[in-house]
Amino acid sequence: MKLKIQSLNIGIKNKKDDAVCFEIPRGSKTSIVSTKNKFAAAPIIFNKKNIKNIKPRYLFINSGNANACTGKEGYSNLKKYAKKLSGKLNCEDNEILFFSTGIIGEQLPISKILNSIDKHKFPFNSSLSSASRAIMTTDKFPKIVQKRIKILDQEIKIQGICKGAGMIEPNMATMLAFVFIDVAVKQRFLRKLLMDCISETFNKISVDGDMSTNDSVVLVSTGENNKIDMSKTINQNRLKRELLITFKDLSLMIIKDGEGATKILEVDVKNALSPSQAKKLCYAIANSNLVKTAIYGEDPNWGRIIAKIGSVENIDFDVKKVKLYLNKILVFKSGIATSDAKSSKLKKSMKQRNIIISLSLGAGEKGSSIITADLTKKYVHINSAYTS
Amino acid sequence: MKLKIQSLNIGIKNKKDDAVCFEIPRGSKTSIVSTKNKFAAAPIIFNKKNIKNIKPRYLFINSGNANACTGKEGYSNLKKYAKKLSGKLNCEDNEILFFSTGIIGEQLPISKILNSIDKHKFPFNSSLSSASRAIMTTDKFPKIVQKRIKILDQEIKIQGICKGAGMIEPNMATMLAFVFIDVAVKQRFLRKLLMDCISETFNKISVDGDMSTNDSVVLVSTGENNKIDMSKTINQNRLKRELLITFKDLSLMIIKDGEGATKILEVDVKNALSPSQAKKLCYAIANSNLVKTAIYGEDPNWGRIIAKIGSVENIDFDVKKVKLYLNKILVFKSGIATSDAKSSKLKKSMKQRNIIISLSLGAGEKGSSIITADLTKKYVHINSAYTS
Repeated sequence: MKLKIQSLNIGIKNKKDDAVCFEIPRGSKTSIVSTKNKFAAAPIIFNKKNIKNIKPRYLFINSGNANACTGKEGYSNLKKYAKKLSGKLNCEDNEILFFSTGIIGEQLPISKILNSIDKHKFPFNSSLSSASRAIMTTDKFPKIVQKRIKILDQEIKIQGICKGAGMIEPNMATMLAFVFIDVAVKQRFLRKLLMDCISETFNKISVDGDMSTNDSVVLVSTGENNKIDMSKTINQNRLKRELLITFKDLSLMIIKDGEGATKILEVDVKNALSPSQAKKLCYAIANSNLVKTAIYGEDPNWGRIIAKIGSVENIDFDVKKVKLYLNKILVFKSGIATSDAKSSKLKKSMKQRNIIISLSLGAGEKGSSIITADLTKKYVHINSAYTS
Repeated sequence: MKLKIQSLNIGIKNKKDDAVCFEIPRGSKTSIVSTKNKFAAAPIIFNKKNIKNIKPRYLFINSGNANACTGKEGYSNLKKYAKKLSGKLNCEDNEILFFSTGIIGEQLPISKILNSIDKHKFPFNSSLSSASRAIMTTDKFPKIVQKRIKILDQEIKIQGICKGAGMIEPNMATMLAFVFIDVAVKQRFLRKLLMDCISETFNKISVDGDMSTNDSVVLVSTGENNKIDMSKTINQNRLKRELLITFKDLSLMIIKDGEGATKILEVDVKNALSPSQAKKLCYAIANSNLVKTAIYGEDPNWGRIIAKIGSVENIDFDVKKVKLYLNKILVFKSGIATSDAKSSKLKKSMKQRNIIISLSLGAGEKGSSIITADLTKKYVHINSAYTS
């Protein structure tokens, strides 16, 4: 059995496809990570109940309405929708995992949805590309990766889609990603793959360091391809390397779609005393509006970065040991600016699309990094002009 | 002896006054709170050494150059400048407290400064108003409070100046405040007054919750007025109430001067389990770009606020008990929007200059609040157009 895809309209958006149903081959393994937001949406709560006991057979995603902050009515709507769908698909309600993305705080147009599902035939003849479009909300472009890699002489297929534009969508429950591999791996290894890949990718892109009410990342191993022995470490490592690239590519598409973004900013902290201190500094720098506007203005304004670093509480370091690099050019050392800090080489480098801030704290051996976008007038325009 | 003031030019700015010297009457008591930023400027380090052992006789402030991130040379420059000044003023170097505000990372024009101080006569005949202008950097207006309050039949004089525009100045070391009371109080009570007033005012205004490299607040009790018995609790309480208002007025002027700000946003968290959880939530909401742009757009976008609240880690509450008010109108309760959340009354209220977000967590009895400004296109413009 193969992975099957159906894009459809269920009456949330006008005419355009606003839903996708994935039929997962029997024997697939599925691993899922969802938002820790306390106001988690109805589908997040629904999935958490079901994923423990049952192997999912379908993933059903709708865009346009997040079904978040919708209370009992929202959850009851989801149950109606699940019941209708399970009847159509001839499965149990709890064999479907649900994902919603779109506006927060509005009830689903439930009669329209039930009616649309009822009428739909589910031939499962859509492409991944059409699915990538159906899950878009304010995304400016669809986000899809499809590739084949070779392990020995055998091909492995990795494919995935995602949606979102960082955490910067207006009142939208933001990020969803679905990645499929066609080889069979054990559930425990699948979980580890997902967690490792997320921690290096989706958990390292952010505008303000939090998850919205609906964020979810799903990894499915379908087992359609049984020609490769995935119990071998060498094959596992190869798969992990490639999957990491896929996750990275997808997550970067989200940053690139960030509203009004003109630059990709990577913040890299090294030689911290602990990983958590490194991470805290990364976020502090990456989320500083003064830093983000300087990057937008192509201004090598290291003073803002240093002032921010010094203001973060509970970070152990000696100011004299701090080294700060902008686009790999050393700008601050021994408590004072270097001669390069005002160089034309540095100024010129700020015109690049990809900007790197690297900090060496001189306190230990731990590090962390994060990728974000600049803060632009267009960002403010989009997010203030939007009316809820 | 009375408080004496001299504004002057010491060669940092072109012609305009760029320095102020306060001569504090003998017998004055001085209390000072300075930035915790690890990259504290040279004057901050200098003052910390001296305030312990000596009673300051002068406060000397320069604007235009922060003398921060200037290393050994910056500190040595400050010592030269202190020596020259103490010679002129006939005191010890360490009887002068120094404050600098302005650009980070540039050395002081030390020969110009020494030369200017040398030539200056120090007649101490300036007004507080001229001092309030001399300490400005990118401030759009001078910030001054002068008032007399009555305790029994006697008048007390409270006067103060400050400078800064939140934490949002471009590459500037930002906030300085100097407040003088003419009555004599004990050092310990003065300290308590300062700390209590700061925690309710200057520590509750912020754009990103940190202090820059030079921030300082100074409170001086000069003792010129000895007609009131300040050992009486009733008089102390009256003084404290009035001083709190003065600090609040000064700190609000800073927010109002925030670059590009069009709205004053107050975030008020109640019924949290602990003060620290309440404070953490206040900052998270107040520093959210999505919230700040919604306020700018006059959009009652409660979904962004709720999503932010839910994403903050380690806050104890039950989502069903959360109540959210926008301009005192209940918009979210029992996990769902109220009917008022889309009302025209609410929309209209967003046009006010002062916006209040009030959150009741239903978890305990602790609270916190913070005042900030909105995030505007002008903010991005100013902070990206600035070139270091």
